[in-house]
Amino acid sequence: MNLGGFKNKEVLVDLTSGSVDYRPVNEEYAKKFIGGRGLGVKYVLDNGPEVEPLSEDNILCIMTGPVTGSRSSMSGRLCVVTKSPLTGTVTDSHMGGWTAARLKWAGIDNIIFKGKSDKPVYLYIENGQAELRDASDLWGKSTRATVQAFKDKYGADDLSVMTIGQAGENKVRFAGFMNEHDRAAGRGGTGAVAGFKLLKAIVIKATQKGNMPEAKNADEYKEANKKAVKAILDGGLTAPNKGGLSVYGTNVLTNLINEVGALPTMNSQATNWDEAEKHSGEWVNEHLLVANNTCHACPVACKIEVEVKEGKYKTRVESFEFESAWALGANSGLSNSEAIAYLIDLCNEYGMDTIELGHCLSVTMEAFEKGLVDEKLDWGDADSMIEMTRKIAHREGFGGVLAEGPARATAMWGAPELSMSVKGQSIPAYDPRGIQGIGLGYATSNRGACHLRGYTVASEIAGIPEPTDRLAAEGKGELLKVFQDLLSFSDSMNICKFSSFSENAEHYAEQYSGMTGIPMTAEDVMLAGERIYNLERYYNNLAGFDKAEDDFLPKRFTEEGATGNSAGSVSRMDIMLDEYYNVRGWKDGVVPTEKLVELGIIEKADSGETVEQ
Amino acid sequence: MNLGGFKNKEVLVDLTSGSVDYRPVNEEYAKKFIGGRGLGVKYVLDNGPEVEPLSEDNILCIMTGPVTGSRSSMSGRLCVVTKSPLTGTVTDSHMGGWTAARLKWAGIDNIIFKGKSDKPVYLYIENGQAELRDASDLWGKSTRATVQAFKDKYGADDLSVMTIGQAGENKVRFAGFMNEHDRAAGRGGTGAVAGFKLLKAIVIKATQKGNMPEAKNADEYKEANKKAVKAILDGGLTAPNKGGLSVYGTNVLTNLINEVGALPTMNSQATNWDEAEKHSGEWVNEHLLVANNTCHACPVACKIEVEVKEGKYKTRVESFEFESAWALGANSGLSNSEAIAYLIDLCNEYGMDTIELGHCLSVTMEAFEKGLVDEKLDWGDADSMIEMTRKIAHREGFGGVLAEGPARATAMWGAPELSMSVKGQSIPAYDPRGIQGIGLGYATSNRGACHLRGYTVASEIAGIPEPTDRLAAEGKGELLKVFQDLLSFSDSMNICKFSSFSENAEHYAEQYSGMTGIPMTAEDVMLAGERIYNLERYYNNLAGFDKAEDDFLPKRFTEEGATGNSAGSVSRMDIMLDEYYNVRGWKDGVVPTEKLVELGIIEKADSGETVEQ
Repeated sequence: MNLGGFKNKEVLVDLTSGSVDYRPVNEEYAKKFIGGRGLGVKYVLDNGPEVEPLSEDNILCIMTGPVTGSRSSMSGRLCVVTKSPLTGTVTDSHMGGWTAARLKWAGIDNIIFKGKSDKPVYLYIENGQAELRDASDLWGKSTRATVQAFKDKYGADDLSVMTIGQAGENKVRFAGFMNEHDRAAGRGGTGAVAGFKLLKAIVIKATQKGNMPEAKNADEYKEANKKAVKAILDGGLTAPNKGGLSVYGTNVLTNLINEVGALPTMNSQATNWDEAEKHSGEWVNEHLLVANNTCHACPVACKIEVEVKEGKYKTRVESFEFESAWALGANSGLSNSEAIAYLIDLCNEYGMDTIELGHCLSVTMEAFEKGLVDEKLDWGDADSMIEMTRKIAHREGFGGVLAEGPARATAMWGAPELSMSVKGQSIPAYDPRGIQGIGLGYATSNRGACHLRGYTVASEIAGIPEPTDRLAAEGKGELLKVFQDLLSFSDSMNICKFSSFSENAEHYAEQYSGMTGIPMTAEDVMLAGERIYNLERYYNNLAGFDKAEDDFLPKRFTEEGATGNSAGSVSRMDIMLDEYYNVRGWKDGVVPTEKLVELGIIEKADSGETVEQ
Repeated sequence: MNLGGFKNKEVLVDLTSGSVDYRPVNEEYAKKFIGGRGLGVKYVLDNGPEVEPLSEDNILCIMTGPVTGSRSSMSGRLCVVTKSPLTGTVTDSHMGGWTAARLKWAGIDNIIFKGKSDKPVYLYIENGQAELRDASDLWGKSTRATVQAFKDKYGADDLSVMTIGQAGENKVRFAGFMNEHDRAAGRGGTGAVAGFKLLKAIVIKATQKGNMPEAKNADEYKEANKKAVKAILDGGLTAPNKGGLSVYGTNVLTNLINEVGALPTMNSQATNWDEAEKHSGEWVNEHLLVANNTCHACPVACKIEVEVKEGKYKTRVESFEFESAWALGANSGLSNSEAIAYLIDLCNEYGMDTIELGHCLSVTMEAFEKGLVDEKLDWGDADSMIEMTRKIAHREGFGGVLAEGPARATAMWGAPELSMSVKGQSIPAYDPRGIQGIGLGYATSNRGACHLRGYTVASEIAGIPEPTDRLAAEGKGELLKVFQDLLSFSDSMNICKFSSFSENAEHYAEQYSGMTGIPMTAEDVMLAGERIYNLERYYNNLAGFDKAEDDFLPKRFTEEGATGNSAGSVSRMDIMLDEYYNVRGWKDGVVPTEKLVELGIIEKADSGETVEQ
């Protein structure tokens, strides 16, 4: 292995046999797919796109990238890649904190789990060595109780723990991993895959000192890093203490998105809400904020730690995020920010995706209101929401239905149209009728509805890198492709997506070149991103998503008009999807063989047959 | 239309628009696919194999055959064909009674429903005319209450009603249709398809007098019929009052199957049970029998009407069948035949498949015993079983999980190995370890696990038409093919499967020739059966069942040894499946194009492309 930034050591854990092996990182793959998300997807593809997500055949990849654990700004990200039990697509889910950096400091780049243990286990990592240990006494414990148990056992210093809660153990299809205090790899059900495998946690003991990854070209890397930090410190959204992410966290968006009429309200029956201000960043900072926290190597510190000091919603939680607050707030008709904080905390304790959980509640509320289910759940009824959240995590009673996720649950009731989801994953907090491009992003995202695959909102709302008309459909196919490709790269380098508000492809290219020693230009960055996005799409095509109908939006968005300052608008998928396929060079959502060959995803063998590389 | 036996009139109901139209029967199709099951499958294929079962796109076909309503013995069968919401395959489900005959007497061969109504409706048929009428006041009613309401409205004379209960309304994936008193088209979830479409019932008013179908060659038909009746009256299993079906009903099998060690007990954890005798035909006749009932034109009268005269299980029900008694009995650890009768009655009232319901209970019992779910349900706990049955029908609490069927429910718990099912449909009362051929039949059945696709038990247990060794694997591929093809024909002629205990292909050929006027030999019967079986397989291949892995048995049957007089035996799928594919001329479960062309299912166009005929 000749690439800087890599420790060149992967751990292979066979949970069935209990064996732990090591191998170098595949250098050819790493050059092509960068690391993190891209490399993880390649491993999952090699494992076969037809495996059952909740089966011994699925693999679970814990991935870092070439700059993880380095001094690169916002490089404290870890990526979990697997076949999703929620969507049936390949999925990758990211978490901040220090776990990623500590894994690298412990001398390990990636961990690949296969098989299924016959009793609960955790993987303990220290000094480049990994060992499976018994977790029987931790099974059934919440995420924080699990973290505390490991702190008691191994000492809190230099320790990172990523763990599943009861939701993962019970194979709730949108269970995730939690680490540090309240950082989540939330989406796509990676925690259910771990729960199925009886893998409770990964525990890492490692210090930065003497263990940071080495840059191949140290001077070039240092210079690149300095330039990137400057961009972040100068950036409108990322600059510390200037009113953006650093001050209000992601929740800076609530009032803004509500004002333009793009805040999905009560299961997207409206797109604005009078009450939304009560769970906005401004409100929370005034009433509940107690601390601003950060991740490894990040000057932005977007975390908003809140505390409800008394009353029945007494809690302290670090992740009062925009999406979480919206899913349990406007989306569910709840404006009490204290109750929202309590619900977020509960999701964190059980280890569940707040977005998907919010949709579980809102589809039930709408279905109950319309007489389609008997399960009484009223809009904004906090105490019933709390009780149902508990039932979902434990698959108790009706909770067992919702534990399948809103798309499957509504299908069970014969009312799939109530689920605001794509490929089984529910939409986040931007209504496709008020922001056209992001709707196309939901529809074509390779992991189901998601804002993080291609965050056109940056352009459509914040004017980054340049403003576009949020209500215009034309041009959004091209815009989306740029965002999707760029973020595919940053996710694979494993650098925080928020860096893209201030950094650009050139910043990434320079840091990557300096660290790995592989010359890279801004164009190379976009090409690698395109390769990774097509790799995922190829996986999904092979997994059965091979028609334009798979890239759909729920009818509500294309047929029922928006409200507020987007009044009457509907999503113009009809215009955007064709343009997007055209820009991508895809046919009805399928990557043609020539494209796969052109991007180096498969090889055209002499015989004319195609083979995977 | 030049075929005898047909009224040459089909009703096309578009539930979306509310329109009712009529068309002649497609004569070319009818010649090729006979009627009933075969013709219905062809209609469902033409509608597209990729439709969602619970969607407006699926169609629901109510089919009769060329001898329905005639004097042919056991010709009182009606067949419901659709894409199954339980299995995702094409499915056909049959019911006895008089509904089929009355439909024909009303001047109609078949009914095809498409679309989805916007309010509950029923279809009223009289004198060759059909009309959609409002069923809003019947929605929520049980099957018997619905039948009674129609009797009150239209008079009981000459009236047949086939209806769904609450289970169908709530889209329970194994809801069926009920008609007459307790006759069920139970398997595959046809009632859920109707429930989704807001179709409550089909009501037919018609008398036999002057309306029987006309035979093309009356003398030939009369002779053929006489010969068939003689075979039935002489047959060991079908002869009236000689100890077989006529005396004990299907439940004649309980003690026999238990004795050989092939009675799946407590979710197939054993294959015999000391207590099974208490729900056997012999026991029931001694303790609970009150009447023997029959269907149109049947001398066998296999129905066993039982009454529990007092106590908390007080009930009267006509269908104390072997499969039902076993599913709720040995399979669930319950030996109290009064409680079993009560549970059967409950399933009939709600309109649910007793076999699938029994598995819902038994998988929960095993999962609870093993600590995989918290829902307390103990083996043989009748009162909890009754309560859970009610919850399933109404999708209440944990019942909403089980309403998805045992295969989906156990997958939700991450324990799919607990579900004794194939393609999502649960096995009936013969353990594949004690009777090898029927296991192959479950695995390769085109509608998921089923004994009725190819009842090799006739040979392996009763020696009909000739005895084979039940524990031998060799030769079962060929044996099964014969049964599958023969029963595909009788199901398409819509004559009761039990006729095959005494009638053979020649009997069927003669009746068919006499009735329709199309010359037919015993060989033609087998070829038509093969064509229909391959037509279904072709549908399933197109619907995504295109690998040998789809034709599997649960691991319990291939890895855990049987008990009792089959002690230690495991299913030898490894031997049988290859032999079967070989006999069928299939490749890994897929019908090759040449085979489809050879059987006339598709045409080879000049261009080399294949087109459907």
